[in-house]
Amino acid sequence: MRLSRYFLPILKENPKEAEIVSHRLMLRAGMVRQHSQGIYSWLPLGKRVLDKVNRIIREEQDRSGAVELLMPTMQSADLWMESGRYEAYGKEMLRITDRQDRAMLFGPTNEEMITEIFRSYIKSYKHLPLNLYHIQWKFRDEIRPRFGTMRSREFMMKDAYSFDLTLEGAEHSYRKMFAAYLRTFDRLGLRAIPMRADTGPIGGNLSHEFIILAETGESEVFCHRDFVNFDIPPADLDFDSVDALKGIFDKWTSLYAATDEMHDAAAFDALPEGERLSARGIEVGHIFYFGTKYSEPMGAKVQGPDGKEHPVHMGSYGIGPTRLVPAIIEASHDENGIIWPDSVAPFDAVIINMKAGDAACDGVCEKLYEALQNAGLDVLYDDTDERAGGKFATADLIGVPSQVVVGPRGVANGEVELKDRKTGAREAMTVEAAIAKLTNGR
Amino acid sequence: MRLSRYFLPILKENPKEAEIVSHRLMLRAGMVRQHSQGIYSWLPLGKRVLDKVNRIIREEQDRSGAVELLMPTMQSADLWMESGRYEAYGKEMLRITDRQDRAMLFGPTNEEMITEIFRSYIKSYKHLPLNLYHIQWKFRDEIRPRFGTMRSREFMMKDAYSFDLTLEGAEHSYRKMFAAYLRTFDRLGLRAIPMRADTGPIGGNLSHEFIILAETGESEVFCHRDFVNFDIPPADLDFDSVDALKGIFDKWTSLYAATDEMHDAAAFDALPEGERLSARGIEVGHIFYFGTKYSEPMGAKVQGPDGKEHPVHMGSYGIGPTRLVPAIIEASHDENGIIWPDSVAPFDAVIINMKAGDAACDGVCEKLYEALQNAGLDVLYDDTDERAGGKFATADLIGVPSQVVVGPRGVANGEVELKDRKTGAREAMTVEAAIAKLTNGR
Repeated sequence: MRLSRYFLPILKENPKEAEIVSHRLMLRAGMVRQHSQGIYSWLPLGKRVLDKVNRIIREEQDRSGAVELLMPTMQSADLWMESGRYEAYGKEMLRITDRQDRAMLFGPTNEEMITEIFRSYIKSYKHLPLNLYHIQWKFRDEIRPRFGTMRSREFMMKDAYSFDLTLEGAEHSYRKMFAAYLRTFDRLGLRAIPMRADTGPIGGNLSHEFIILAETGESEVFCHRDFVNFDIPPADLDFDSVDALKGIFDKWTSLYAATDEMHDAAAFDALPEGERLSARGIEVGHIFYFGTKYSEPMGAKVQGPDGKEHPVHMGSYGIGPTRLVPAIIEASHDENGIIWPDSVAPFDAVIINMKAGDAACDGVCEKLYEALQNAGLDVLYDDTDERAGGKFATADLIGVPSQVVVGPRGVANGEVELKDRKTGAREAMTVEAAIAKLTNGR
Repeated sequence: MRLSRYFLPILKENPKEAEIVSHRLMLRAGMVRQHSQGIYSWLPLGKRVLDKVNRIIREEQDRSGAVELLMPTMQSADLWMESGRYEAYGKEMLRITDRQDRAMLFGPTNEEMITEIFRSYIKSYKHLPLNLYHIQWKFRDEIRPRFGTMRSREFMMKDAYSFDLTLEGAEHSYRKMFAAYLRTFDRLGLRAIPMRADTGPIGGNLSHEFIILAETGESEVFCHRDFVNFDIPPADLDFDSVDALKGIFDKWTSLYAATDEMHDAAAFDALPEGERLSARGIEVGHIFYFGTKYSEPMGAKVQGPDGKEHPVHMGSYGIGPTRLVPAIIEASHDENGIIWPDSVAPFDAVIINMKAGDAACDGVCEKLYEALQNAGLDVLYDDTDERAGGKFATADLIGVPSQVVVGPRGVANGEVELKDRKTGAREAMTVEAAIAKLTNGR
């Protein structure tokens, strides 16, 4: 992408409405724009990151055997009356009346709708287990939306719903998502720690929050230090293996880990001091097992091997992509801007032309641009006539992992400079060497 | 994907609510489910097709130089008061009041919002031309939604918005989209013909609808027969070339083409009989140039080279992916079901195991499944214990281009049967030959 043809509205000033660093950096880097309280556009740079986050979420859901569909944003109030949540949900639910005077709502979550889909088609245990997920916009009319897209009213959620004949089956389904989440957050460059959680309005009796550690996190968390080095389940994990998944689950729940809310100071203090980790955290995922809470009132039953009808055991599993993007920034930034993990960087490399219009610089830049793109890299080429200092600042702010600096002096010697955004390390090398280094392994 | 682990709720009966063939086939093939009037879930098979349609739309938008962002579904009424459309839009606009009693709406289109984004950041003609697009859910509260997702209330739209300093620039931007649309529909396996159109509530003085020819189309259209064989702009078209785009535009607008609404019977009848084509059509895209209709009242101005401020010239360009899917089916089906064009088929191939549980058949199927997946094909493997006849009917219904039939008799001779969904042609060959044929060119 040539920057001269892109839409990257960088802000020079620190926006004063932003209270936390991720919100400030997302506004400054031209990633999002607020329209109404808690309602945002994702500008091109932000959209790219969001897409990459979603791709990883999707790949790990698919790997675990979950199947993607796409439910609508608008739901009928009738559905929520069946489950009994229509009144209970309160003012956070955005209630809407259509032109036929039907009571509708903008879905804040989809337990009812997916249960309705399930009961319409699935009648036998032979089609179980089943896990259906979608990535769709949700709306929760929070009284105080804040922190940018970290806590917005219109937000994107990946929500998965599992269906099983038995409690044992449901526990296995729960552990599949548990393992998939560990892999997902790891691939996003985050260290997430599962912590026992309250079930809140979703209900149920088994629930874990996934909390990532970030210096500027919203809440205090307490856990055993060993979590930081626990191995992540491998890509070839057999999700059908009950034992393998139980092993992962048992290990990751064997040590102390609690949010402020669930904290047991006595238990934590009983740990040797060197094993205690108290830190700031951000919730990035939440999984629930709630048995027959929805299937019972809504009549989602299957015939079991015994020939009788049984309400299915269900769980739900949420990750908020539009929340994850700022969470990643909270976990990875410095005073100059964002430092994207490679897996979600909006561009893999940025080419900085220090003297656009100079034939030699332009020629080298074009050569780099073409070679890197041909190798499958997402490349931003800063071909604008801004001064070099501004270009460096922008490149650092938007956090692209690799910068290739092309200036007249270097070009005269046949060289460009490669800068690593994370370490700040700079290295001069030939154009060919730079291409080889950046495309290594592609 | 193993069918035993997929969610493909095939209906055996013809759903009586479906008036048109695409709606009937989408319900029968388990692609969509209606929740409320004109509000649908996209079930896994439908979601796959929708994703492939969106990918092609996106690639052609990007190729033409448009830049993707993502605006929210919820908009503030204030924005629409600025343009004067809040009252004018009428009952099709879904009006919503949030918990703070603010007047909101579920966006039916985004001219106002994109103009607001533009005016917030772009102050100079130097950043023009610019074309911003997104693919997002829209809501139009039609009084009579029908024909499944062909005319639904909640629907997906790709809407692009162009910004130019001058009329001439805007015309070039319009022609870029014109060419991109020709390429898009062609890649979707459709023959689309641009026809002059009314501008309706969007406004403006230049507008084309893209109509595809389909025997079961909703309306009558009239055009010169030569359109059927016109060349599509090539992938390497230079979208910066004013002359090249004008050439394409002039050619594709040189001959008679009109919807029923705009039809001039006298002009059409003046054509020699052999050149007249009257057919059924479906509108799948609509593009508009509307000048300063929004930029003027909303104050979207840029400084020109003359140092003065000028309201920008704008256009908007829409394609409805959730409408395109049924349109493709209307254009391509037979009595047994859907016939997907390769480019949007939910799976490239389906492996039909005629005797699941038979070691020899299972072995051949697994070998095929692995080899085809490794070659990058999307493969559905029917490993269920349904009878063969049911499997054949399902494979035909869901319209996967290639079927690989694996039965005990063939396997005993080291052979499988390859069936082409479109032509019905069957051919026996070795497993290796089948793999080679299906992965040819991958």
